[in-house]
Amino acid sequence: MRRLRAGIVGGGRGAFIGAVHRIAAELDGQALVVAGAMSADAATARSSAEAWYLERSYDSYAAMAQAEAARSDGIDFVIVATPNHMHYPVARAFLEAGIHVVCDKPLAFAVTEAEQLVALVGSGKPLFALTHNYTGYPAVREARALVKNGALGELRKLLVEYNQDWLMTPLEQTGNKQAQWRTDPARAGVSCCVGDIGSHAENLLEFISGQHITALCADLTSFVAGRRLDDDANILLRLSGGAKGTLVCSQVACGEENALSIRLYGSKGGLEWRQQEPNTLLFKPPGAAWQNLRTGKHFSDPAAQAATRTPAGHPEGYLEAFAMIYRDFIADLRRVQRGEPPQRNYPGVHDGLRGLRFIERSVESSRRGAIWLDL
Amino acid sequence: MRRLRAGIVGGGRGAFIGAVHRIAAELDGQALVVAGAMSADAATARSSAEAWYLERSYDSYAAMAQAEAARSDGIDFVIVATPNHMHYPVARAFLEAGIHVVCDKPLAFAVTEAEQLVALVGSGKPLFALTHNYTGYPAVREARALVKNGALGELRKLLVEYNQDWLMTPLEQTGNKQAQWRTDPARAGVSCCVGDIGSHAENLLEFISGQHITALCADLTSFVAGRRLDDDANILLRLSGGAKGTLVCSQVACGEENALSIRLYGSKGGLEWRQQEPNTLLFKPPGAAWQNLRTGKHFSDPAAQAATRTPAGHPEGYLEAFAMIYRDFIADLRRVQRGEPPQRNYPGVHDGLRGLRFIERSVESSRRGAIWLDL
Amino acid sequence: MRRLRAGIVGGGRGAFIGAVHRIAAELDGQALVVAGAMSADAATARSSAEAWYLERSYDSYAAMAQAEAARSDGIDFVIVATPNHMHYPVARAFLEAGIHVVCDKPLAFAVTEAEQLVALVGSGKPLFALTHNYTGYPAVREARALVKNGALGELRKLLVEYNQDWLMTPLEQTGNKQAQWRTDPARAGVSCCVGDIGSHAENLLEFISGQHITALCADLTSFVAGRRLDDDANILLRLSGGAKGTLVCSQVACGEENALSIRLYGSKGGLEWRQQEPNTLLFKPPGAAWQNLRTGKHFSDPAAQAATRTPAGHPEGYLEAFAMIYRDFIADLRRVQRGEPPQRNYPGVHDGLRGLRFIERSVESSRRGAIWLDL
Amino acid sequence: MRRLRAGIVGGGRGAFIGAVHRIAAELDGQALVVAGAMSADAATARSSAEAWYLERSYDSYAAMAQAEAARSDGIDFVIVATPNHMHYPVARAFLEAGIHVVCDKPLAFAVTEAEQLVALVGSGKPLFALTHNYTGYPAVREARALVKNGALGELRKLLVEYNQDWLMTPLEQTGNKQAQWRTDPARAGVSCCVGDIGSHAENLLEFISGQHITALCADLTSFVAGRRLDDDANILLRLSGGAKGTLVCSQVACGEENALSIRLYGSKGGLEWRQQEPNTLLFKPPGAAWQNLRTGKHFSDPAAQAATRTPAGHPEGYLEAFAMIYRDFIADLRRVQRGEPPQRNYPGVHDGLRGLRFIERSVESSRRGAIWLDL
Repeated sequence: MRRLRAGIVGGGRGAFIGAVHRIAAELDGQALVVAGAMSADAATARSSAEAWYLERSYDSYAAMAQAEAARSDGIDFVIVATPNHMHYPVARAFLEAGIHVVCDKPLAFAVTEAEQLVALVGSGKPLFALTHNYTGYPAVREARALVKNGALGELRKLLVEYNQDWLMTPLEQTGNKQAQWRTDPARAGVSCCVGDIGSHAENLLEFISGQHITALCADLTSFVAGRRLDDDANILLRLSGGAKGTLVCSQVACGEENALSIRLYGSKGGLEWRQQEPNTLLFKPPGAAWQNLRTGKHFSDPAAQAATRTPAGHPEGYLEAFAMIYRDFIADLRRVQRGEPPQRNYPGVHDGLRGLRFIERSVESSRRGAIWLDL
Repeated sequence: MRRLRAGIVGGGRGAFIGAVHRIAAELDGQALVVAGAMSADAATARSSAEAWYLERSYDSYAAMAQAEAARSDGIDFVIVATPNHMHYPVARAFLEAGIHVVCDKPLAFAVTEAEQLVALVGSGKPLFALTHNYTGYPAVREARALVKNGALGELRKLLVEYNQDWLMTPLEQTGNKQAQWRTDPARAGVSCCVGDIGSHAENLLEFISGQHITALCADLTSFVAGRRLDDDANILLRLSGGAKGTLVCSQVACGEENALSIRLYGSKGGLEWRQQEPNTLLFKPPGAAWQNLRTGKHFSDPAAQAATRTPAGHPEGYLEAFAMIYRDFIADLRRVQRGEPPQRNYPGVHDGLRGLRFIERSVESSRRGAIWLDL
Repeated sequence: MRRLRAGIVGGGRGAFIGAVHRIAAELDGQALVVAGAMSADAATARSSAEAWYLERSYDSYAAMAQAEAARSDGIDFVIVATPNHMHYPVARAFLEAGIHVVCDKPLAFAVTEAEQLVALVGSGKPLFALTHNYTGYPAVREARALVKNGALGELRKLLVEYNQDWLMTPLEQTGNKQAQWRTDPARAGVSCCVGDIGSHAENLLEFISGQHITALCADLTSFVAGRRLDDDANILLRLSGGAKGTLVCSQVACGEENALSIRLYGSKGGLEWRQQEPNTLLFKPPGAAWQNLRTGKHFSDPAAQAATRTPAGHPEGYLEAFAMIYRDFIADLRRVQRGEPPQRNYPGVHDGLRGLRFIERSVESSRRGAIWLDL
Repeated sequence: MRRLRAGIVGGGRGAFIGAVHRIAAELDGQALVVAGAMSADAATARSSAEAWYLERSYDSYAAMAQAEAARSDGIDFVIVATPNHMHYPVARAFLEAGIHVVCDKPLAFAVTEAEQLVALVGSGKPLFALTHNYTGYPAVREARALVKNGALGELRKLLVEYNQDWLMTPLEQTGNKQAQWRTDPARAGVSCCVGDIGSHAENLLEFISGQHITALCADLTSFVAGRRLDDDANILLRLSGGAKGTLVCSQVACGEENALSIRLYGSKGGLEWRQQEPNTLLFKPPGAAWQNLRTGKHFSDPAAQAATRTPAGHPEGYLEAFAMIYRDFIADLRRVQRGEPPQRNYPGVHDGLRGLRFIERSVESSRRGAIWLDL
């Protein structure tokens, strides 16, 4: 037994999500990032690796995949933290080299690539996790368990939102790298707002509700002049189990930071969760007082208890939730190393493919006049 | 100078809104309810009038309109607090008798009736107020002033909601009178949820934003088996000034009491208000801290200050807001009595007509497959 | 049966609390204010009475007491809304004239006067209510019922606060009348902050807990230069049932409006209530989720249900709570008029006397070095 | 440049705080825990070390100090995560071996030991950090900066609280180890509640206010039958800069999890922070709207910005704040390794000594009748 060895592609200086992945991967003391191809720019790649005290730095992900696969002390898994258009080629290279993959979302640049990844993962041994990190919050797992256990009865109305304001001005014209690639069709894909955050909302909704979106009617807008992709969306939804709802997302909602929230209403109860105060889940029974289901409690659902690291009142946040995806993935990797079958208790390629379809259908619906389309 | 004399039609024992109207009309010490035709049932009418110490009780609104118009000490205005299908005939009777009218919302049973009231009020002298009471909150008036003054810049995204749960079971089958008439097409009109509360949300949105809804795409549902009218709606909106948004309303949202809320996002600021904690308005400037604009402050907009009766921290609520419609109406009535022109600083027939059109178009959109319709 | 006739002493133009008393007395349609001696200044008295459409205006409270007692249509009760030093003489005049009294708090200028009022009320027929208005909130009555019913077990820790900021500058030196009399020992008594708001906190604590304060250790301060009375206090408490706690009050707590709150912790549960969001009471069971006990619910305690006028989600506030004292007082007055014994379900002279003792002992404790004193 | 090597004493299986220290020490990728004497019980020590993949496990802290000091690849610093009575001997052993120390709070078992540690650290080279982890929150650093910059003016009133409920029953009689040592005078010292959490509150108050407590009047209680140390305290405070306040702490406050909060009121502004929602700091200016100073914003004070790892809206929590103490300590250790003078931007022995004095004086004050004592 030892700490696992991880590698990372992307995430070099200037990136936000790279450091998040490192912290999340290492948080439970089960893995260490030791190798990386942290940037397409060789100098940045090297200085980034140095700053992280990596043992091995590569100039290209392809070289890294080959070299690590060949080493007896090579990495156990790789983290893909590149812009969207590089998810597929990088993930593919490591999967083909027999190395397990943790990939940032969305799964790929387009549905076609996503379908290929589904095929690739389905036919091979390496594990694949997609960091839909918001599903790692204990309160989200509590919510999912409550729905599953019937505490809400038959779901009727689902309201999910994800609002930010960081793109409310033409930030991509000021040299901001995050804004540049996310608003660039060549690197982000067909959508900015729906692709970047709407897909998180879609995933959260399906994760908690246990239902799939079957039809949508999407009204997308680019409010900021000169922007090439959407920065706002209002979407009507119908779900597989008969529920209806709305998915609202925006990157121009002035004053909002990272306001992901979800409310579910069923025939026997309601639920409400807000990511910015993630340790409280409101349960709304019919004709009785609302209950503040806090995390880390003895009465929490086992699935939620398993996702907490501190006692109630010691708030856990974004990094801890992100690290929960890694915890579950690493547990699976240990199983595979022991010769046991994996359990796949984390988002994977199928979730990613549904996400891509959601993104593309939303864009298509809006282009055709905000009409209803099946998913 | 004296307290004005008011009459009331409807609002007898068992009704909720009758007592609200009485308190609201009398709160500022400017009026007293002295006469009434409080029920179609004569015994109920009499006992209700007695319980309120009314000086004069009538068996029918028609008799009341005639008699009061003839008295030298007749009522100065009448309150119409009947179910929807009786708004038009009652209002018409008093208007034709030359008596000013305060009418509960929605304005009428259908657009056609609403159009006739518009014509009637437009051609006559009596004043007409529609109790879209939520516009009476000081924070709502502050919000409207902020939008008008440009504090939000160009409006982009508008999210309005009105969720309740009181009809989440088939209450109308248990003898509940409120539920019975509201779910009965013959008394409520073409819609239950959109008509009863969606129209409040629509009015609030237009009141604060200063924009009109120009197109909608509405997905209405009757979740409760056997219900003849909608009890839930998700609606996409486009507004006259270029903003887009959603209007969500429900009477089956388990755990929700009277959750009316609105959020507005513009190019220069955001606003958020929730009716259940009505004395706080959140202002969200770009790149700066959110501000809790509490009511009753020295820094409040004059329009908001004029709508408060207590200092900051002494919470005002539903009744006070309702009474603000009466305060403005009574001030107008005093103007007219002094021979001055009325100012009409309260919702009226035009707002009511737009509300009816919103209701009917929502129902039509939904029936035709949740398609887009112009308003 | 008729609306009762009320008179008022004090509350003329410029006063805040006068209008509050009128609205509260009339809110339920059971009384009308018809007579008044609204100011010691005759012109102000007259113009104030005119603005309220009073039928009879008096230049002095003594003349009013005599005249009203003599009329067949004289007032049923009087409202005493003067500064503190005038509570006793005015209340005494009306009590001696056989007229029921509703008096603003604190009961009197000093303990000695309070004791005389206790004697006077004890030996006579007229009813006496003291407007400790915060006990009129439905959530406060729910809290009291929960404690009484044992839902909290044995009380251990009680934390009550009342913080404002309106005296954080030397407002009394700028001509503000409210500030002038409240900081003037000749009109307010021995204390400003403890007398004005600390006494509300003390009353609320005793009302909900059902225990009396038996000892205190008070640290009072006048933070604003030149101020003659305290504007801030921190007080340790011990209670008759074994609980301990703190009472914190301030009129210099920058940014606070009217932040009265109470938290109670017992061996079996906890409670929390905040006046500025008065329709929520938090119940904290051991080892289970907090419950938001909202007002106006079917599950509310009957005592709380009896104190609501609107359904859940239609927020009630300061005026409604104030009016609840009047509702209970008027119900008693009707009982007495019908020859039935009064029930005295509202604060009275005994509560007022305890309040005065609390004020005086707090001042004494602080003067002697913040030492412990029995109450 | 490399990751630093850390060792740990205590924190074996069953302990809560050990894992917290490991995560906090490693979070920023600057250190790895590689050695430990994790329990006085040899088997537990070994199995705990194995579970963490430690390279070296010791049976005693003394052996560990000697061996690590002798190795060329020995640990750079040690973490002391034992019960209170072992802080002093363990810290001393490592300091004397020339190894830097991070020690859990309180600093020691008693004032006398604390004084010896002050002397020891003052005369030697090794660095010493005390994990008053709550000072690591960005909002706490923002608060401290605001006070320092004069945004609050002259401080007047300070209210600090720390309430929990985990000891509301005689948990120490059920075999719970955490409860056993904390309520045992031989291991915890003279106090349970004040020692364990009151000292955090005291430290937070002094950290933010920049003032020291100069006098106190403490009323301590053991509410749970059979408990040998206090489980609740209400304390009046006077501070060096003229402010007054209260410190309230409890381990029997039913329903409270880890409710540490602080409010400060000055002549020019107010502040409020609550640990359970740690990313919001409320700033209360006089006569203007409250501002929600969220963490991770461009407008945050540099001291606060330096203490965030994620953008606004990606909540940070307890572990991140704890890790901030380590980040500052490690930065200092790097300075020392580079031959630069340390900056000591983290709590140290002097804070610890003040904390011990606060604990002992509180207990003494209470024993002598809750009298005032100087600090």
